[in-house]
Amino acid sequence: MKAIILFAHGSRDPQWHLPMVAVKERILKAQPNAWVTCAYLELSQPDLATSVAEFVALGADEIRVVPMFLGVGKHVRNDLPSMMSELTARYPDVRFECVPAVGEHPQLLDLLAHIACE
Amino acid sequence: MKAIILFAHGSRDPQWHLPMVAVKERILKAQPNAWVTCAYLELSQPDLATSVAEFVALGADEIRVVPMFLGVGKHVRNDLPSMMSELTARYPDVRFECVPAVGEHPQLLDLLAHIACE
Repeated sequence: MKAIILFAHGSRDPQWHLPMVAVKERILKAQPNAWVTCAYLELSQPDLATSVAEFVALGADEIRVVPMFLGVGKHVRNDLPSMMSELTARYPDVRFECVPAVGEHPQLLDLLAHIACE
Repeated sequence: MKAIILFAHGSRDPQWHLPMVAVKERILKAQPNAWVTCAYLELSQPDLATSVAEFVALGADEIRVVPMFLGVGKHVRNDLPSMMSELTARYPDVRFECVPAVGEHPQLLDLLAHIACE
């Protein structure tokens, strides 16, 4: 079974998370049986390792991590690859896929330009 | 003349800014004469007040601020409205429009869900 982790920065502010949760809910609306959750780098729970452990315990053998970052800085370029290396080593039977940050997705950049002008 | 300010968090990491700059370039590609720039809350320059002052000096009478935030926390809900109030008071002849943060845009949430699953 494949799992999706929406990996975002995190914040002490509960309202900060609403867009991440909204994306998760959209996925669940389209695919009610999908394994999808939000995980956070800091300030919020769960963290990535906890979410991965939970999905592995459920039987996930494929985990896709989607970095929900608009700006692509050290969190995405350094912290996340380092976490992914640790997870890959810890769970050799799980196939991990970490896609580019959403801020690097051409279609998202197009939409942002459209939103800015509409 | 109308100006657009893509208002993002900011970072010490130069690469962090690339997606914001990419959005600006997309707008300029579609509308080469558009007045559009990126401005930042902290850690990066220019700040919002500087960008507004520059556009007003050029003759902008309408300024649209687009909060480039995925998470909608205190930066968007408190800091930005407070900055907008100051700007509105300082430039009574300019029509300011601050749109919802991009993370609150339904079409963007749809696209993020699509990206997460593709």
